[in-house]
Amino acid sequence: MPQVVVDVVLKPEISDPQGQAVLGALGRLGHTQVTGVRQGKHFVLDVEGTPDEAELKQIAETLLANPVIEDVELHLPTD
Amino acid sequence: MPQVVVDVVLKPEISDPQGQAVLGALGRLGHTQVTGVRQGKHFVLDVEGTPDEAELKQIAETLLANPVIEDVELHLPTD
Repeated sequence: MPQVVVDVVLKPEISDPQGQAVLGALGRLGHTQVTGVRQGKHFVLDVEGTPDEAELKQIAETLLANPVIEDVELHLPTD
Repeated sequence: MPQVVVDVVLKPEISDPQGQAVLGALGRLGHTQVTGVRQGKHFVLDVEGTPDEAELKQIAETLLANPVIEDVELHLPTD
């Protein structure tokens, strides 16, 4: 069954307290090579039949993400 | 600055109430082409210098995920 991946990330201008907390913890543990962390959501959708790109784009942009503060990356299956 | 993406997903045998809730909502809205949803986390790390794959793998597997219930996908920058 085709799988479609949707990554939802906060827009760059929106502050990300979760990512900041992870970055702080990494620094305290000595992982200084990491200088920035942003945390988002990762959805894996099982799709029946051939994925309808327009419908999936609408689902991703309006139902899985909040378009006011979040950006969406839609990854259709490559075959 | 190189960016490393870490996707954290629940192991297949772990139930995912968030994904189930999204799937239920999609069904009620008529999006019947989607037959399964799993929700995970998506981290984008800024890395200074050349990414140290071993250290990033350790960060991803032990600090960003709970290895008891979650799997990790590490995406190093391609250049």
